[in-house]
Amino acid sequence: MDQILDKIKATRPLVHHVTNYVTANDCANILLAFGGSPIMADELKEVEEITTISNALVINMGTLNKRTVKTMIRAGKIANQKKIPVVLDPVGVGASAFRTQTAQKLLDTLSFSVIRGNISEIKACNGLGSTKGVDANEEDKITYDTMDEAIALAKSFAKRTGAIVAISGEIDIISDDKKSYLIHNGTKSLGDVCGTGCMSTSLIGGSIGANAERILEATVFAVSTMGLCGELAFQKADPATYGMASFKTSLLDAVSLMTNEQWRAGARIEAR
Amino acid sequence: MDQILDKIKATRPLVHHVTNYVTANDCANILLAFGGSPIMADELKEVEEITTISNALVINMGTLNKRTVKTMIRAGKIANQKKIPVVLDPVGVGASAFRTQTAQKLLDTLSFSVIRGNISEIKACNGLGSTKGVDANEEDKITYDTMDEAIALAKSFAKRTGAIVAISGEIDIISDDKKSYLIHNGTKSLGDVCGTGCMSTSLIGGSIGANAERILEATVFAVSTMGLCGELAFQKADPATYGMASFKTSLLDAVSLMTNEQWRAGARIEAR
Amino acid sequence: MDQILDKIKATRPLVHHVTNYVTANDCANILLAFGGSPIMADELKEVEEITTISNALVINMGTLNKRTVKTMIRAGKIANQKKIPVVLDPVGVGASAFRTQTAQKLLDTLSFSVIRGNISEIKACNGLGSTKGVDANEEDKITYDTMDEAIALAKSFAKRTGAIVAISGEIDIISDDKKSYLIHNGTKSLGDVCGTGCMSTSLIGGSIGANAERILEATVFAVSTMGLCGELAFQKADPATYGMASFKTSLLDAVSLMTNEQWRAGARIEAR
Repeated sequence: MDQILDKIKATRPLVHHVTNYVTANDCANILLAFGGSPIMADELKEVEEITTISNALVINMGTLNKRTVKTMIRAGKIANQKKIPVVLDPVGVGASAFRTQTAQKLLDTLSFSVIRGNISEIKACNGLGSTKGVDANEEDKITYDTMDEAIALAKSFAKRTGAIVAISGEIDIISDDKKSYLIHNGTKSLGDVCGTGCMSTSLIGGSIGANAERILEATVFAVSTMGLCGELAFQKADPATYGMASFKTSLLDAVSLMTNEQWRAGARIEAR
Repeated sequence: MDQILDKIKATRPLVHHVTNYVTANDCANILLAFGGSPIMADELKEVEEITTISNALVINMGTLNKRTVKTMIRAGKIANQKKIPVVLDPVGVGASAFRTQTAQKLLDTLSFSVIRGNISEIKACNGLGSTKGVDANEEDKITYDTMDEAIALAKSFAKRTGAIVAISGEIDIISDDKKSYLIHNGTKSLGDVCGTGCMSTSLIGGSIGANAERILEATVFAVSTMGLCGELAFQKADPATYGMASFKTSLLDAVSLMTNEQWRAGARIEAR
Repeated sequence: MDQILDKIKATRPLVHHVTNYVTANDCANILLAFGGSPIMADELKEVEEITTISNALVINMGTLNKRTVKTMIRAGKIANQKKIPVVLDPVGVGASAFRTQTAQKLLDTLSFSVIRGNISEIKACNGLGSTKGVDANEEDKITYDTMDEAIALAKSFAKRTGAIVAISGEIDIISDDKKSYLIHNGTKSLGDVCGTGCMSTSLIGGSIGANAERILEATVFAVSTMGLCGELAFQKADPATYGMASFKTSLLDAVSLMTNEQWRAGARIEAR
């Protein structure tokens, strides 16, 4: 998968985000660190033009409101029309009827290249559950016991939507309707920082924006890079002084310093 | 007060924020560092459901607008109805008629568990003054000479509102209508970083969300933790290279690393 | 230009921002680090009062929407009326008709003290080009070959608008209609961090807010400080571990630690 990173660096994909105000800055910075170029814009009047000049579109449902939902749909439609890949991050779907209905409307109206969420969010998107806030429910967490079930969910949801489905967790699952990959990279500390899910989605946007001809591999590359960078950041830890903000700094540093060699040495991907 | 932190870590309180876009990310991260779980949501259509699943509600008036004021009131009403504790941070109240009227409307309509602001904001809330921007006015600053007056203000405002009143400053005052605590923790550097007031409010939200049966102590714990973490961050300073962004990183680190032992050794709380 | 920094520190100018939600926190923090005091507010109902108590107004077009454009105009009008200096950052102008029309409307309606953008944005403001996203187009980049042309653009745009024009790039150009300065400070790494343009604009806001009687020099001081702080941050780099987030931390640190001595030793300003 070496060429994936090379192509991101070479083409500097512009990724249009219709996203939340909590993690927008982190998403912009991690995408820059990865080699992409972020643009955040949510005014309905300009969104067709902004999407049109972009290489990918990220729709992130955090802090959504009635105004931005309209923008998401307009942006998504133009992206579909122009064959620009679209990633959906259904943040907090299931936590309110408005989020669930919005997710369903987006899924009914638009064609997504990738849908990324935690297991509770993906279940809620698929009509199977609800969420408590923006983190995965304890009882939903994927373990080795429930792995087969989670893969089956990813596959069937991928089949229904035509999208690559990326389920984040201790072990990440990336799947189309036939083939699945498990990503064994990551560290618990990633869950201690706000927005690592959103950031992961933005990396996917950059990766597929530059590699539209191999969306599945580009998604696997982005998600494994995020997990690996979490590990690299954690390894720097001096437990006495190294708290969550230092970890976050090291995480973004690691993305900006990532090389093909480092990725090859560290990525732990299992095809299923 | 040992059990307060333990209970935050054990119960991971979900804290719904209707808040500003300037400090939202820092508030989310510091709350995570403290052991809580943040959710930021301001769409009127979903706010009842989001508040209902939360353990506390934070209403922060920074970058408020007509749309979000409606959301604040709706969220506050449902929180009151469901007995979910609510914290108010009247950012910049007194700087405009709109902010002052909004603060008054919130105070008239809702019942708050805690109201936290700097001395100028608390005076403005109480109908006694105006503010210049988002920092306390020079002439308002609490000194030992004006301490008794500030405590009297806190007590009478607490009596009027039924809330715990937390006045941030070089010495913090936490008071209900009878009992006051002075917090002697903190460092001047806390005022050099944007949003330490907002962050303090979010820590209060986490603390009372997990300790609703002892709001006064939980507020004292949160405010003293913030001040103590400021001190710990400052102690790391190498004055030649250690500027405000490093201080901010260390501040969030310190919150994520805080233990009961550290708090017992460092908290300087004076009952009045 | 020693007195410029002294005056910022002494007067602590309040800078009202009508700005985007991606870089708002960084802009607030860098302005604090510089000695200023930020206030972000975009509700139409309060904007006249907020601008009136401020020493400068920053209008930043990132993540603009129909609602905030109205606020920008109202804030700008009151600032003009009260002789409060106004800075425009036309983020992404040229990327959509809405942004271009908004920039033109702002330029037609308001009188700006300073307009800061990259070369593509300044060209687009001047009706000469379009932009791809929020970064300067490759083909627009200022080199020694195209320097004279860029200076001529700055001068003629300054003449047309009555504003100081600041064009950011590898070499920055600051110009009124007669006199130009080239700033040879800076480092490539500044382009790797989201929002360094916005941050530069906020520093200008602080600088002219405290030095309204010499806008040109105050702008030169702010822009050279930003570039110099980028250099100082870069010098700390251990290439093996020092990524973009560490650089950003050091950048803000450097602004907060900047002294007149350091500035005199490091600023490389060429009068043209």
